[in-house]
Amino acid sequence: MLLPELLLRRDKIRSIMAQQNIDAAIITCNANLLYTYGQIVSGYLYLPLHSPAHLFIKRPNNLTGEHIHPIRKPEQIIDLLKENGLPIPQTLMLEGDELPYTEYMRLAAMFPEATIVNGTPIIRQARSKKTDIEKIMFQRAANAHAKAYQQIPSVYHEGMSDKEFSIEIERLMRLQGCLGIFRVFGQSMEIFMGSVLTGDNAATPSPYDFALGGKGLDPSLPGGLNGTLLQKGQSVMVDLGGNFNGYMCDMSRVFSIGKLTEEAYVAHQVCLEVQEKIASLAKPGAVCEDLYNAAIEIVTKANFADNFMGIDQQAKFIGHGIGLEINEAPVLAPRVKQELEPGMVFALEPKIVLAGVGPVGIENSWVVTAEGVEKLTICNEEIIEL
Amino acid sequence: MLLPELLLRRDKIRSIMAQQNIDAAIITCNANLLYTYGQIVSGYLYLPLHSPAHLFIKRPNNLTGEHIHPIRKPEQIIDLLKENGLPIPQTLMLEGDELPYTEYMRLAAMFPEATIVNGTPIIRQARSKKTDIEKIMFQRAANAHAKAYQQIPSVYHEGMSDKEFSIEIERLMRLQGCLGIFRVFGQSMEIFMGSVLTGDNAATPSPYDFALGGKGLDPSLPGGLNGTLLQKGQSVMVDLGGNFNGYMCDMSRVFSIGKLTEEAYVAHQVCLEVQEKIASLAKPGAVCEDLYNAAIEIVTKANFADNFMGIDQQAKFIGHGIGLEINEAPVLAPRVKQELEPGMVFALEPKIVLAGVGPVGIENSWVVTAEGVEKLTICNEEIIEL
Repeated sequence: MLLPELLLRRDKIRSIMAQQNIDAAIITCNANLLYTYGQIVSGYLYLPLHSPAHLFIKRPNNLTGEHIHPIRKPEQIIDLLKENGLPIPQTLMLEGDELPYTEYMRLAAMFPEATIVNGTPIIRQARSKKTDIEKIMFQRAANAHAKAYQQIPSVYHEGMSDKEFSIEIERLMRLQGCLGIFRVFGQSMEIFMGSVLTGDNAATPSPYDFALGGKGLDPSLPGGLNGTLLQKGQSVMVDLGGNFNGYMCDMSRVFSIGKLTEEAYVAHQVCLEVQEKIASLAKPGAVCEDLYNAAIEIVTKANFADNFMGIDQQAKFIGHGIGLEINEAPVLAPRVKQELEPGMVFALEPKIVLAGVGPVGIENSWVVTAEGVEKLTICNEEIIEL
Repeated sequence: MLLPELLLRRDKIRSIMAQQNIDAAIITCNANLLYTYGQIVSGYLYLPLHSPAHLFIKRPNNLTGEHIHPIRKPEQIIDLLKENGLPIPQTLMLEGDELPYTEYMRLAAMFPEATIVNGTPIIRQARSKKTDIEKIMFQRAANAHAKAYQQIPSVYHEGMSDKEFSIEIERLMRLQGCLGIFRVFGQSMEIFMGSVLTGDNAATPSPYDFALGGKGLDPSLPGGLNGTLLQKGQSVMVDLGGNFNGYMCDMSRVFSIGKLTEEAYVAHQVCLEVQEKIASLAKPGAVCEDLYNAAIEIVTKANFADNFMGIDQQAKFIGHGIGLEINEAPVLAPRVKQELEPGMVFALEPKIVLAGVGPVGIENSWVVTAEGVEKLTICNEEIIEL
């Protein structure tokens, strides 16, 4: 990552810090270090409001530079700040929604005179509006993601289970350069690469707050595919995370084993209609809940409200910001008053689950421009018969 | 998971709570819920010292039972405790090393009169000694893991990169039932399925505290394979996590492209010798640091100390407890006075990295019995020529 880009990102965080009278930040969680330092390290980026950032690093041991200081433990940071002529902050922000309690308290105890505030919402706010370089990285991820998805029909064969199908698609993704790791904000969310759902498994409630559920293969990971055979008349939705360069591109496509019921094709078109409607409304200033409500209006009118985003347990969002993590701001959900802003990137995923058939619908990744939105993930959106 | 097993696990935690005068625990982090409830849910297991556990659950919405209470937010727990005749605890433990600061504070604020203590070390202590059923689950994982590894030579072809080779091995693992997800304790550790390292990439320092490093494919995941072509005279070490049922089995094997240098075979035998020595010393009462020191003595005598567990950045452990996460207690490392106890399961991984060749060595998963240790991961341990 080039330094000007990193300086730009740090200044985005600093400008929010300044509004809230925060003198300095300590950044140590992986996604935030990746954002502000351009690579993941085991260490602490100290970001003062008015002077250059310093990196206090434990591992790897081969990074050197003007503002890089090797340490064994964070308590050494205090003396190093003094040696480098940096004042001890009066108000310091730490990653309160991400750092474990004991790690947070350990860092806070190093600054007994300072007011400590939760910096996670500030960093997330900065991260929610992507820089030009981040948009380019997203576009690259989207291109690779689409290239893998285009090959999906080639790996299907009759008699496969959802698991076998998924394994071959995971391989396609990896061969296109997918890093595999799926970063989610929040300690309770976890998933392996994404989800491939067929038939009634798509309606199984799961503990995770993803768009759809699924029973999973084991109670230790109760989400996604469950070993169902892919059968005639059933749909299968592929929704894998497209992490090719750190940025979590998101895209779902639906396939069918033979033909589906008429209702399934109608439902799929309703989802495409929702997508088209939201894409026409989404632009800087558009309010998240209004976009959500517009989607609900269409699916209600089409009589699919009871099957929208699940059946027995329905997800209460139709889209979510994406970035270094799959669940960033903004969220397109009820009661969210946040407005879209240029540079935001989000996944829009209207999905309908039909008993006896499976999931239909669509998911693409979109970037908010000055006037509207642009689709990043270009790939056939109809139901493809396998 | 059968209820008697869950009751046994909860009582293991309770017995440590009793020693420390803790009245109740709230358990909400995934690995700990899996341990105490047998499946992952989005919710809170309330574990009082002297009465049955209650589950307060947000998702999935289809779990019902005598002690199961649906909630939308954790603050509802207080009233539900009262309604169910449960006293408010005087001393409550929360997962302080795992819960994010703000989540911890939110739960703590629900019990303003209570003393709140960090329960993570207590739960980890209970989890470190596996029950008979956990040992069976580990043995099943080890069998599947070994079965996948036995097929590794069949997926190699000349001209492959470490990445292409890894992708085919990941597929073998998945086809054997590997869930893919790799659970690590601590917010800063992350990895996708495991690591495949060849040539000098094995010596590249990484930020993560795994046994070996590797540059990775991208600064957003700087560990493991880096796209190196598998070349004649080089070794390749496969070290993937064997999560087939929640339990993280751990195993490494070494392959060679053609023949390696004489030194490489000598180094490999030294690692096998270390393994044999540690296996003979390891038994209830053996002290972790003594096992570590015994390993260092052998590699030093054999003149491989500078290449042991890395070159420029050397890992300072030779083994680690495994369980629902890859890094549990105990750790076989310097200054660790902990003694092995029956039921502990650990990975032992003496590895040597040779410049110009790559990594050699071995890793197996072991269970501590009444008299010694037993190897779980049975698979050819020599360097296999591809």
